[in-house]
Amino acid sequence: MTQVQLPAEQRRSLLIKPEEIGTENAPVPQPGPEQVLVEVAAVGICGSDVHYYEHGRIGDFIVEQPLVLGHEASGVIRAVGSAVTGRAVGQRVALEPQETCGHCIQCLSGRYNLCPDVQFYATPPVDGAFAQYVVLNAGRAHPIPDSLSDEAGALIEPLSVGVWANRKAAVEPGDRVLVTGAGPVGLLAADVARARGGWVAVSDTNSYRLQVAHERGAQAVIDVTQGSPRDQQGEFDVILECSGAAPAVLGAFDAAAPAARIVLIGMGAARLELPVGLIQARELRVTGVFRYANCYPAAISLAASGAIDLDALVTGRFGLDEVEDALTAAKRDPKTLKPVVYPNR
Amino acid sequence: MTQVQLPAEQRRSLLIKPEEIGTENAPVPQPGPEQVLVEVAAVGICGSDVHYYEHGRIGDFIVEQPLVLGHEASGVIRAVGSAVTGRAVGQRVALEPQETCGHCIQCLSGRYNLCPDVQFYATPPVDGAFAQYVVLNAGRAHPIPDSLSDEAGALIEPLSVGVWANRKAAVEPGDRVLVTGAGPVGLLAADVARARGGWVAVSDTNSYRLQVAHERGAQAVIDVTQGSPRDQQGEFDVILECSGAAPAVLGAFDAAAPAARIVLIGMGAARLELPVGLIQARELRVTGVFRYANCYPAAISLAASGAIDLDALVTGRFGLDEVEDALTAAKRDPKTLKPVVYPNR
Amino acid sequence: MTQVQLPAEQRRSLLIKPEEIGTENAPVPQPGPEQVLVEVAAVGICGSDVHYYEHGRIGDFIVEQPLVLGHEASGVIRAVGSAVTGRAVGQRVALEPQETCGHCIQCLSGRYNLCPDVQFYATPPVDGAFAQYVVLNAGRAHPIPDSLSDEAGALIEPLSVGVWANRKAAVEPGDRVLVTGAGPVGLLAADVARARGGWVAVSDTNSYRLQVAHERGAQAVIDVTQGSPRDQQGEFDVILECSGAAPAVLGAFDAAAPAARIVLIGMGAARLELPVGLIQARELRVTGVFRYANCYPAAISLAASGAIDLDALVTGRFGLDEVEDALTAAKRDPKTLKPVVYPNR
Amino acid sequence: MTQVQLPAEQRRSLLIKPEEIGTENAPVPQPGPEQVLVEVAAVGICGSDVHYYEHGRIGDFIVEQPLVLGHEASGVIRAVGSAVTGRAVGQRVALEPQETCGHCIQCLSGRYNLCPDVQFYATPPVDGAFAQYVVLNAGRAHPIPDSLSDEAGALIEPLSVGVWANRKAAVEPGDRVLVTGAGPVGLLAADVARARGGWVAVSDTNSYRLQVAHERGAQAVIDVTQGSPRDQQGEFDVILECSGAAPAVLGAFDAAAPAARIVLIGMGAARLELPVGLIQARELRVTGVFRYANCYPAAISLAASGAIDLDALVTGRFGLDEVEDALTAAKRDPKTLKPVVYPNR
Repeated sequence: MTQVQLPAEQRRSLLIKPEEIGTENAPVPQPGPEQVLVEVAAVGICGSDVHYYEHGRIGDFIVEQPLVLGHEASGVIRAVGSAVTGRAVGQRVALEPQETCGHCIQCLSGRYNLCPDVQFYATPPVDGAFAQYVVLNAGRAHPIPDSLSDEAGALIEPLSVGVWANRKAAVEPGDRVLVTGAGPVGLLAADVARARGGWVAVSDTNSYRLQVAHERGAQAVIDVTQGSPRDQQGEFDVILECSGAAPAVLGAFDAAAPAARIVLIGMGAARLELPVGLIQARELRVTGVFRYANCYPAAISLAASGAIDLDALVTGRFGLDEVEDALTAAKRDPKTLKPVVYPNR
Repeated sequence: MTQVQLPAEQRRSLLIKPEEIGTENAPVPQPGPEQVLVEVAAVGICGSDVHYYEHGRIGDFIVEQPLVLGHEASGVIRAVGSAVTGRAVGQRVALEPQETCGHCIQCLSGRYNLCPDVQFYATPPVDGAFAQYVVLNAGRAHPIPDSLSDEAGALIEPLSVGVWANRKAAVEPGDRVLVTGAGPVGLLAADVARARGGWVAVSDTNSYRLQVAHERGAQAVIDVTQGSPRDQQGEFDVILECSGAAPAVLGAFDAAAPAARIVLIGMGAARLELPVGLIQARELRVTGVFRYANCYPAAISLAASGAIDLDALVTGRFGLDEVEDALTAAKRDPKTLKPVVYPNR
Repeated sequence: MTQVQLPAEQRRSLLIKPEEIGTENAPVPQPGPEQVLVEVAAVGICGSDVHYYEHGRIGDFIVEQPLVLGHEASGVIRAVGSAVTGRAVGQRVALEPQETCGHCIQCLSGRYNLCPDVQFYATPPVDGAFAQYVVLNAGRAHPIPDSLSDEAGALIEPLSVGVWANRKAAVEPGDRVLVTGAGPVGLLAADVARARGGWVAVSDTNSYRLQVAHERGAQAVIDVTQGSPRDQQGEFDVILECSGAAPAVLGAFDAAAPAARIVLIGMGAARLELPVGLIQARELRVTGVFRYANCYPAAISLAASGAIDLDALVTGRFGLDEVEDALTAAKRDPKTLKPVVYPNR
Repeated sequence: MTQVQLPAEQRRSLLIKPEEIGTENAPVPQPGPEQVLVEVAAVGICGSDVHYYEHGRIGDFIVEQPLVLGHEASGVIRAVGSAVTGRAVGQRVALEPQETCGHCIQCLSGRYNLCPDVQFYATPPVDGAFAQYVVLNAGRAHPIPDSLSDEAGALIEPLSVGVWANRKAAVEPGDRVLVTGAGPVGLLAADVARARGGWVAVSDTNSYRLQVAHERGAQAVIDVTQGSPRDQQGEFDVILECSGAAPAVLGAFDAAAPAARIVLIGMGAARLELPVGLIQARELRVTGVFRYANCYPAAISLAASGAIDLDALVTGRFGLDEVEDALTAAKRDPKTLKPVVYPNR
């Protein structure tokens, strides 16, 4: 293991219980043979972080002991394990926050996100990145060019969700793409659809978010308080449903052209009434996404090419002692898109 | 137009109104330049025929004037239009009962079944095949080898539904395939899955139908009155839902392996509560089928190869004056699978 | 047929024999029931036009009687056939210069470009668009927005080749794409690859053309007189071979990453020695393109979005009497990319 | 590590140098934590074994020190590593003879056969299975049902090549499939094509092998000494080229229908002159195969279902001291298809 002199201790932020955040000193972890140690530069706040903070659980994932949140992270490699090749101390990296078994049928088939033994940052009991240092498998530390900021490096994570959703939908030039829900994931899914050559409309009930979508390059925005997507913009070849809200889902299916591809991205109710008759009569192709696989290189390429502006999503900057402020920023300011935590500033 | 001497008049069977069938004399139609005239040999009874007979409508399709039912048909070409090539008087053919526009985006993209101007036999106001003679586009009259019976030629139609569903699901050797619902369409979908190399389990509540499925070669049968498909046989890579029944649909999703492909074939309620959370967490791929496109040659090939026995599905034989008996056969005998009408016997 | 007053006669340009161009008066054609009559605005010169002009043939296609060349065309609809819907007099359109049978297996499968009965403009004996008026099937006259110039409308044709090639290669964000050959088709193929999110390198021996590629947005250019693509830029996931030159083809294969997709676009020798061992060891996927199918809407969308600048390719403007000058422009000026003929100016 | 009492020493067969085989005593290997120890039951002779025996090399793979040949193997698990789950002592298994890194882009994308660090049995310097005991990763030891013989378990390996080739070609019911070359790989590729519902013709110059192909179920056989495949049987949608012989390859392309898929399986010259013009004009899709990935379960399923008879391919049985006889069997008897070595009999 090659490394510069590193501190023995670090500070990290913990979710103690719902609505209670603390910080603690902890040992700086040692990377295993195939891992790297990363000094964390920036960590974006995801809706799932906020949900764990507010409710202490997401579905069957329950926070039963103090948990480090944060899984949208970038940083600098400070040490590499003995078996690591292709990574070096000093490299700036975006962290793909998952480890997988590598030999189940899902891993072997290129769908490692569906590995039953996946370990994902900030999903109990796996700690996340609101810490000065983290370790992860070297292959999950993806080098980023100098042209990308620390914040952009962190936001490669939600951008990867957009990359994956668009890959599932096989968005092509000329496709009319509807993105329902203009939160950070929706905005990024729309960005990727545009960067693949799609003609993109974004719908929401929030006029501020629609304005952001417009500024980011969406060819049309749809205020669904004024009428359905179909009524306002006709049919769509692809629908990326990013709201998780039942009315948006139904509006999405209503707007689907024959043979349209629909990707369910937004998390909502476990069950929803869907228009099965439409799925049949129009031969719609419906799928969902669970995180992503093999998306970081593509996301980095899109961000580095200038096609997608990640920095513009950042709406607040916080230190490690201010994680609670970061988690509650959206409650205080409805224009919040992406608060970012800097564990080492 | 080349032809042998043909009668000027024919007899055909009409649905007058719900639960009332009549027969009439009508002119033998003249084929257009690109059409052929077919003397109908055999016509299978489909669930949709029975539904029109009982209710006078299916969804928005309403029988407003007397309608000739029947769309699963075979016959012999008796005349060919002036512009027809590749078809000859005397050829035995399976009839693909749809005409499409040929220049809309669906037709141009190889999805002619989704053509908005599709004309489908026995769908009001388009007459079907319970008649001595019918015309259709030459390309839709698919030659069959002598090794296939008239009945098999007729049942190429529902077999094409099975071919299409399996193509949508991309069934591969080694896939574990669950077919929910062992009616004629389910049995044929299972047959095709097996003929593609899949390992096939068929589920139903009806033990007689499960026995038929077993005899046709299904590797397992599942009596869902005894437990769910998952409980009895574990996970499946592909699910071909052929029942349209809400509990079966939910059981289908429950049994889906990660990344499973689900095809909704059976017609039921326009809306159903579906487990959206599962679609996401397992990245299920859900689609529906609306008839079929480009399936007749494959269906004929499978039947001619001996891989699928169509004759064994026939459970009753009726003349043109007995159409009403054919339509009500299933009510009288629960072992009814496929009654067949012979308009010219 | 609705129309404004139209002249009875028009002028058109003819290839009499190799290296001899003439003009003649001819009747303005009448559109058939499903056709439109188009007043031609602009026609790009394609390499195939030049090849017919110089040699009187391309492979088995031989000019045996005077032929109107030109197949990259835009114009304005001046009359519509009796059965036409969705098109109107006055609409500006890009002309997709092919008619197909609509009922062969290729047409029915969405591959109408492979229809054995395809009729393609300026391919003997089918006349092309160096004329004041042409007719074609209404569905092949694709409306263009006012934001696109007449020249851009004409160049939708070669752009469609780029769209088709990229679709065959399934270019995705993050893919490293090598385009070998920076002529008009190569430049447009590179543009489309970039518009799909690819990272694009363009190779050629001609430094001027490489400069154009760079100015159009290629992330890298490769002067192959200075070393192979692999030596200069490493491996590629996708290779769009647009030169047709044997050394470029071999260099393309040499630069292919494992599982790379290679599309052979440039026309050259009928047979070439290919590295079959590499195709196997790296499981390369090789295909070719023959024109395109269902690409005009996507090409128009890309051009209208501003992602691809077609006007910048135009390097000369010619009247109908100057077709010969247009066909020989490249010989006179090596910086020639796309001469354009304006039949009605 | 759970195990029964095992011997400390075993015997194994070695290729000393070209045309010289020896045997030696060697330690029974210890399985690593994620490996199993397998007592080898049966090992098929592959053409590559014969090639190493005759020439001491295949391309860049050179036998520089004594090498254990044999990579088509079945056996019984006799010990399992400490971290192994899902495998047990006593299980009968087919051995997938490759280990891969698990974290390169090829492995992560589901193409582990293209892993640059792949270790494949009997490919220098990796020893193979002509030994009483071997170790390999537990996930590569695929359980087989009792209905499969030891020989069938061994021949799952070449069957997997057939599965992979057919998957690349996406063979569908109704596809007309031409298999060129009726050696063991060609026969198995044809079997799989048939088991996927294809209509299969097999071509060769050897009438005995054609007879075998016919007996195994091929719908047609083509003696190419009597005329080309196209002349005898028309066009094909899929071509599985299993001969590696230049004339067969050209005949394969000649017989390709528009949009046909061609898979190059047979190993021959590193470079071949291919009809590039046809690849373009017919938009052929050409690819090659390098071993296989994720095919053992499907191959086992096909063999266990009875769709493919592996035992019938066995043409000779040999002990560990008779490996040289097994390797030279084909030279002595032209009817040789698959000699099998039994290291523990």
